[in-house]
Amino acid sequence: MMIVMKKSATEVEISQVVGWIESVGYRTHFSRGVERTVIGAVGDERGKEQLLSVACLPGVDQVIPILAPYKLASREFHGKRTVVDVGDVPVGGEAFVVMAGPCSIESEAQILESARVCHEAGAKVLRGGAFKPRTSPYSFQGMEEAGLKLLALARERTGMPVVTEVMNTEEVSLVEEYADLVQIGARNVQNFALLKKVGQAKKPILLKRGMMTTIDELLMSAEYILSSGNSRVILCERGIRTFETATRNTLDLSAVVVLKDRSHLPVIVDPSHGVGHWKYVTAVSRAAYAVGADGLIVEVHPEPAKAVSDGIQSLKPAKFGTLMEQLRTMEQALGKIRELDE
Amino acid sequence: MMIVMKKSATEVEISQVVGWIESVGYRTHFSRGVERTVIGAVGDERGKEQLLSVACLPGVDQVIPILAPYKLASREFHGKRTVVDVGDVPVGGEAFVVMAGPCSIESEAQILESARVCHEAGAKVLRGGAFKPRTSPYSFQGMEEAGLKLLALARERTGMPVVTEVMNTEEVSLVEEYADLVQIGARNVQNFALLKKVGQAKKPILLKRGMMTTIDELLMSAEYILSSGNSRVILCERGIRTFETATRNTLDLSAVVVLKDRSHLPVIVDPSHGVGHWKYVTAVSRAAYAVGADGLIVEVHPEPAKAVSDGIQSLKPAKFGTLMEQLRTMEQALGKIRELDE
Amino acid sequence: MMIVMKKSATEVEISQVVGWIESVGYRTHFSRGVERTVIGAVGDERGKEQLLSVACLPGVDQVIPILAPYKLASREFHGKRTVVDVGDVPVGGEAFVVMAGPCSIESEAQILESARVCHEAGAKVLRGGAFKPRTSPYSFQGMEEAGLKLLALARERTGMPVVTEVMNTEEVSLVEEYADLVQIGARNVQNFALLKKVGQAKKPILLKRGMMTTIDELLMSAEYILSSGNSRVILCERGIRTFETATRNTLDLSAVVVLKDRSHLPVIVDPSHGVGHWKYVTAVSRAAYAVGADGLIVEVHPEPAKAVSDGIQSLKPAKFGTLMEQLRTMEQALGKIRELDE
Amino acid sequence: MMIVMKKSATEVEISQVVGWIESVGYRTHFSRGVERTVIGAVGDERGKEQLLSVACLPGVDQVIPILAPYKLASREFHGKRTVVDVGDVPVGGEAFVVMAGPCSIESEAQILESARVCHEAGAKVLRGGAFKPRTSPYSFQGMEEAGLKLLALARERTGMPVVTEVMNTEEVSLVEEYADLVQIGARNVQNFALLKKVGQAKKPILLKRGMMTTIDELLMSAEYILSSGNSRVILCERGIRTFETATRNTLDLSAVVVLKDRSHLPVIVDPSHGVGHWKYVTAVSRAAYAVGADGLIVEVHPEPAKAVSDGIQSLKPAKFGTLMEQLRTMEQALGKIRELDE
Repeated sequence: MMIVMKKSATEVEISQVVGWIESVGYRTHFSRGVERTVIGAVGDERGKEQLLSVACLPGVDQVIPILAPYKLASREFHGKRTVVDVGDVPVGGEAFVVMAGPCSIESEAQILESARVCHEAGAKVLRGGAFKPRTSPYSFQGMEEAGLKLLALARERTGMPVVTEVMNTEEVSLVEEYADLVQIGARNVQNFALLKKVGQAKKPILLKRGMMTTIDELLMSAEYILSSGNSRVILCERGIRTFETATRNTLDLSAVVVLKDRSHLPVIVDPSHGVGHWKYVTAVSRAAYAVGADGLIVEVHPEPAKAVSDGIQSLKPAKFGTLMEQLRTMEQALGKIRELDE
Repeated sequence: MMIVMKKSATEVEISQVVGWIESVGYRTHFSRGVERTVIGAVGDERGKEQLLSVACLPGVDQVIPILAPYKLASREFHGKRTVVDVGDVPVGGEAFVVMAGPCSIESEAQILESARVCHEAGAKVLRGGAFKPRTSPYSFQGMEEAGLKLLALARERTGMPVVTEVMNTEEVSLVEEYADLVQIGARNVQNFALLKKVGQAKKPILLKRGMMTTIDELLMSAEYILSSGNSRVILCERGIRTFETATRNTLDLSAVVVLKDRSHLPVIVDPSHGVGHWKYVTAVSRAAYAVGADGLIVEVHPEPAKAVSDGIQSLKPAKFGTLMEQLRTMEQALGKIRELDE
Repeated sequence: MMIVMKKSATEVEISQVVGWIESVGYRTHFSRGVERTVIGAVGDERGKEQLLSVACLPGVDQVIPILAPYKLASREFHGKRTVVDVGDVPVGGEAFVVMAGPCSIESEAQILESARVCHEAGAKVLRGGAFKPRTSPYSFQGMEEAGLKLLALARERTGMPVVTEVMNTEEVSLVEEYADLVQIGARNVQNFALLKKVGQAKKPILLKRGMMTTIDELLMSAEYILSSGNSRVILCERGIRTFETATRNTLDLSAVVVLKDRSHLPVIVDPSHGVGHWKYVTAVSRAAYAVGADGLIVEVHPEPAKAVSDGIQSLKPAKFGTLMEQLRTMEQALGKIRELDE
Repeated sequence: MMIVMKKSATEVEISQVVGWIESVGYRTHFSRGVERTVIGAVGDERGKEQLLSVACLPGVDQVIPILAPYKLASREFHGKRTVVDVGDVPVGGEAFVVMAGPCSIESEAQILESARVCHEAGAKVLRGGAFKPRTSPYSFQGMEEAGLKLLALARERTGMPVVTEVMNTEEVSLVEEYADLVQIGARNVQNFALLKKVGQAKKPILLKRGMMTTIDELLMSAEYILSSGNSRVILCERGIRTFETATRNTLDLSAVVVLKDRSHLPVIVDPSHGVGHWKYVTAVSRAAYAVGADGLIVEVHPEPAKAVSDGIQSLKPAKFGTLMEQLRTMEQALGKIRELDE
């Protein structure tokens, strides 16, 4: 951590800062420039919140952290890339993995038909929501355990492992019982109690970036799960909130590259929430492959106009089939993108 | 809800849309313009998620909701303004209410001294965190129940009611036992399970706007609490995340005016998180009064340089005293700002 | 345009609104819902600013425009897609076009060497800045006319047409003399005097999206150029400003899809400014191809560490060569992406 | 400037960085931490763009500038606060200055009536646009020189100095002839050619913050004007663009405090563009006073429903009168806010 003193800082103020830093267990180091003195606080910055309070001392202009605050999620500390098995499907390995299915589980017929078409088109994991985070208390809140049971039934029929969201610490053990991959949604990315809880789960976790979460904050949220004991985390870019309203969110595909640079964890993309309209989904899905993501999680519904939620951003089966073909063509030509860049 | 058809929409497509809307229980209404046909779906839009799926039909260009999706939180439906009693302190009434205290409860000495100086300066409610949402798992996570007990002790000594945060459904009953006002933090503003749970609490709720939450989404989160049975909600503007990094967040003071226009609920401001540096807190606190807020929640610490968290944004007791004097001067000159505007 | 009245609006207020709308030359149309009356103002909304003032009348709740405000830039009105020739290079046609070169023209040796390596690798257009928009008045401001002459020399040597930026109405005729494609930079996207001026130029225009410009505002800026008489406009996505600081901007690749949906104009992507670091440029360039852009404008420098500006985001020649090979592989496998989607 | 090396950086890489820094004229300074080596580049960073290219060298992780890039605009270098005289009205001195008038000059009757009501209510400077920046080429573009003449007539009648916008270098001398204060609008805040041109003007400049301009970028734009020879610059906060759409922009009142902290220049607030609706203007105007601004520039129109532009955000004369009374009450009670904070 570097402490930049004001131009007007006195020697007494500089001494106080040095004394303060040493009193909390760090060594100090000086750099006197033409206009400013910069004091380095040498030591591990992680859990450094108290160290930041040095900014309260007179004469201090800025406090600049140097190290990334995450360690277990960091590629620098971990070395090789992590592959997370979802059921028997490796995510982060050689193949680009497509997870697909409806936003909400609505009925047995709907989830079984969704599973069938997704499976046939080449999806490897089935998605479907049983607990639904809804902005409005008056909207459909999900089928809950009944939905989880239908999801398990669809797995049985198709052999595809399933991913579904958990929203509350009290439901983690229930969801974990049915899911092969437990999703933490965008709105819960900094629900730290929930992160700690799924950090004790036996199933891998799909951690979605929040719509106002920085890349480093997402990695800190992953760090919560990893440091609680669960080393199987898949990250997911799903769009951030910006001033642009032509799309539901602004899909930040460069975040995939930054995440692969900073972390060893697999990264997938949710194009459906990213753009919010089915007519843009195919194009950005191709881009997600090309940018180097490890997979997709995409909304597919047999009859979008009848969907209880997110119909507008769901692909019809035929469109999804076309997308899968395009992805296969790209994969045949280019292989795993990551190989190109490393 | 208005459905705008494409310029190229055929009569068959228009009929399909009309049929679809009527099939889900709404009446339709036509407006044929020079270039476009607009179809009105007449009926209560709340819980309208399914209605939005009409956008999947061919020929539809845009779907535009007309009504605000909240009802209980709305000023239009509720009529007169709501006053929420926090212990014996009315918030939203005649007086501007200042809540103050440290970010975290750190020790008996620290919270008692904080309570003493805040009370002396004229604060009416004591704040202090026992469960702390921290970006990093390695940071101090709060004293938990031991902290709640110290907070209760400080209340006993000063007579001030206390406000503290709850982060998890499993701790609601514990926090409710000690707190006079239960805070939902910015990161949990769309933790819907938690909102439903505190909607069953017997204590009033302080609902902070998230850094990514629109004004209407904040009101929808309030609607969760209200519709679960707890009618005592205080809203809090605490800064939103923007591209500007000179301040920790961008304090959106105009949101106070919009919230007072759209809702009957009291609105307070958290200047400390809004700006993130003690040297800007006094000025924006005055502005919060002038814009028409019902109160403040501000961080005060006896020795900010020793704070385990947020020292940099905490006022020292003397600075806080000065702020309280300025607020009194303004209140003597102008009275309750709301009266000026209504 | 739809005027939504307040729930409390009286018949007199509704009549006043109707009278007002008719007085400015529009027909009206009614839709009485359960709670609200919605009045349609039927007529061409373009240039509608005055119509918006209806919002000042008592009883009006919201005014909602229905039509896109651009016409010449619109795909709906124009029909088939536009191909813009830059020298003899068609942009928006069958081939994916890569424009490349240094941020600034620095010397004869530098621009000639840049041109040589870009040409050899397969770039079709040479970029290079002679007038440089710099945040700081103390930074290098460009070689101006001397730079334009060097750019012309590089064109002569390689046969590549050249693109360069103009910043001021007074320099349009000078820049136009040398350039095959005249660039309007992100900071000038709403410099309306400049847009009108280049609307009278004989050369095609490369219009970059500003970091704060919505997709519809970008199309309105294109409309300025088109309506001033210059029909040859190429749009460029180059990243928008968001809260994320891990990349210089947030490259909004979904904007490419939306622009291709709403407009007939060609769309290219600037990955260099989009991400701001050379190590992320290759990946997002591939994604720009995959999402359906018509080309790229990418910064390449023979020795980035010696660049007077933007060295950090410039590709070295070898890296650029690798990128071009990957793009060729993708193009051989998939062809022009647009064909896939139409 | 601090150069942070990667954990994996070798001694050779460190030597290369040192050699490079010294080759461009800076001294270096070392700080070896537990995990990282940090190299300080000691020297004046202003105009430092080339120095940033050090980030291209192998082993470099981050480059962190330390000094603010502006000097003439900086409070640290300048010392006492600047008062700018607009005609005979000092801005930045003891009194809070209100500038008011219509968005556009529309006719002689309209501007004279506007001037009369603003003057009577206590405004000190008259605003009115003759050259209008419009998103749409089909919208009213202003009365141009005819408008400037009417503005001069209004000045003659009321004695109030006038402020009006210039959009193009070619019109600077014309506008300067009529205006007492020349406005650079939000969209031109980084039109560097225009900034340099008004830097040679004899009249003071009102520089509005762009909707995506950081505080430091605004100060850099001021630096362009100051370093071109015009020392009379007034800064103006007018709202930034964020995800929130309930207001036209998000008025960043804390920016006023930050600007007063970092710069010696006067700072005023434009509440009309900040919130975009007359019903919110009064409240945020009070807040602008309370936060410590030196004045306001507010839109007032005799008949907002007839305004050719921005009617919705214009105050009627009676509302403006009420606002002026409230401001006087506050000023009588508190005096110049700045005195409270210094």
